[in-house]
Amino acid sequence: MLEELRVVLFRPKYPENIGSVARACLNMGVSNLVVVAPCGFNMEKALPLATVHARHVLESATIVETLAQAVDGCTAVFGTTARTGGWRKGILTPDSLAGVVDERLRGGGRVALVFGPEDKGLTNEETALCSGLMTIPTSQEGTSLNLAQAVVVVLYECFKRSLDTPFVPGGPPEERPATVQEQETMFHNFQETLLAINFLKDDNPDYWMLPVRRFFSKINLRRNEFNLLMGISRQVQWFVKTYGPGVKK
Amino acid sequence: MLEELRVVLFRPKYPENIGSVARACLNMGVSNLVVVAPCGFNMEKALPLATVHARHVLESATIVETLAQAVDGCTAVFGTTARTGGWRKGILTPDSLAGVVDERLRGGGRVALVFGPEDKGLTNEETALCSGLMTIPTSQEGTSLNLAQAVVVVLYECFKRSLDTPFVPGGPPEERPATVQEQETMFHNFQETLLAINFLKDDNPDYWMLPVRRFFSKINLRRNEFNLLMGISRQVQWFVKTYGPGVKK
Repeated sequence: MLEELRVVLFRPKYPENIGSVARACLNMGVSNLVVVAPCGFNMEKALPLATVHARHVLESATIVETLAQAVDGCTAVFGTTARTGGWRKGILTPDSLAGVVDERLRGGGRVALVFGPEDKGLTNEETALCSGLMTIPTSQEGTSLNLAQAVVVVLYECFKRSLDTPFVPGGPPEERPATVQEQETMFHNFQETLLAINFLKDDNPDYWMLPVRRFFSKINLRRNEFNLLMGISRQVQWFVKTYGPGVKK
Repeated sequence: MLEELRVVLFRPKYPENIGSVARACLNMGVSNLVVVAPCGFNMEKALPLATVHARHVLESATIVETLAQAVDGCTAVFGTTARTGGWRKGILTPDSLAGVVDERLRGGGRVALVFGPEDKGLTNEETALCSGLMTIPTSQEGTSLNLAQAVVVVLYECFKRSLDTPFVPGGPPEERPATVQEQETMFHNFQETLLAINFLKDDNPDYWMLPVRRFFSKINLRRNEFNLLMGISRQVQWFVKTYGPGVKK
């Protein structure tokens, strides 16, 4: 049920936590663990925490260099954060996240849950890659959870949800969801287009793209929709190249 | 809210786990920790896992010799178990337990949650002292949770329940949904734009707009998103009018 759920640890500092997370994954039926640029990964320190039962989860974990690599092939990425202020709208709780994840997985998607480093959590740079953000409710006296404990709470909610109703394959297959990579391709293409028509200004276009990104990240974009939007965006670019300022007639 | 909830660790083997449990208690608003006959308790090993924030929870933990002492003064005692077969009827899940605990606490009760040793869990001798038993759902591949992870899952459910109103992460209120009228305005504007850039052909543009309509109809479009999309569409139209074919330079 959670076969297509991927747990991504972003720059974890302590190998013991990676081991603990592997065990939590096993408990909650997740076998797909990816670690991004860990600080001094050490299997000897990680293994005892994984216990012999989750050894295979730990040993088959993939270690990559960047978050983009870690979420490659995923159709939705959810980041965890303890910071819920400012512009961070529509932050999910573990149980509302579990509902969204369940829906995405049943729709044929592949979902990544991203957890930041123990001390600092995810920064805006990483959360920009996320389709949504989630926070675990805590007492105000202690808002910082142990990494593996945060993982187990979130996976527990996802696992619980996956048990709620038996898995029933849908009718005719919907178009497959667009991958995160396709979504990024689209954002870049859109950004170029919006720059070309002077909708975005040259200074800090990434920042001004945020509302566009936020808008699209709430949509479970399908492959055919990706094609549609890319087609429109390319056509605008063609138009600008053909008729835009600086083109001689 | 959880002042009268007590976490009892029965004969834990590893001081690190006691530290981790102290941190989980702090995170979930529980300050009452009792440890029954720990195997070689060692504050130096426990403290780093508690972190400086939960130090006071750990230092004020009570160490007693028997389970009866640990639950003294409580009005209800719930034990955790991974063994759900046989005579163990009416076993609670973390969320059904949370409902019961919440009710007891609001009724002025004092409730103990008892967690057994890492390797063996609670035996019949201990569960005989319990008013009820609770088990955490897990994958069949790995049914044994880390002690502190089991504690955090159960306390998380109790904490979530104890919040008078359901936990809603902060952030400004969401924008109101776009009205049907606004959506129609947007479709018409889009259609004009897509015609202007020759993405749609003049013959039967309504038909070719269908995929665009379908795409947008699945989105619960918000007012601010409506404004964003209208802004982009108008800018493309401005561009066409300013630079498009037939415009003299």
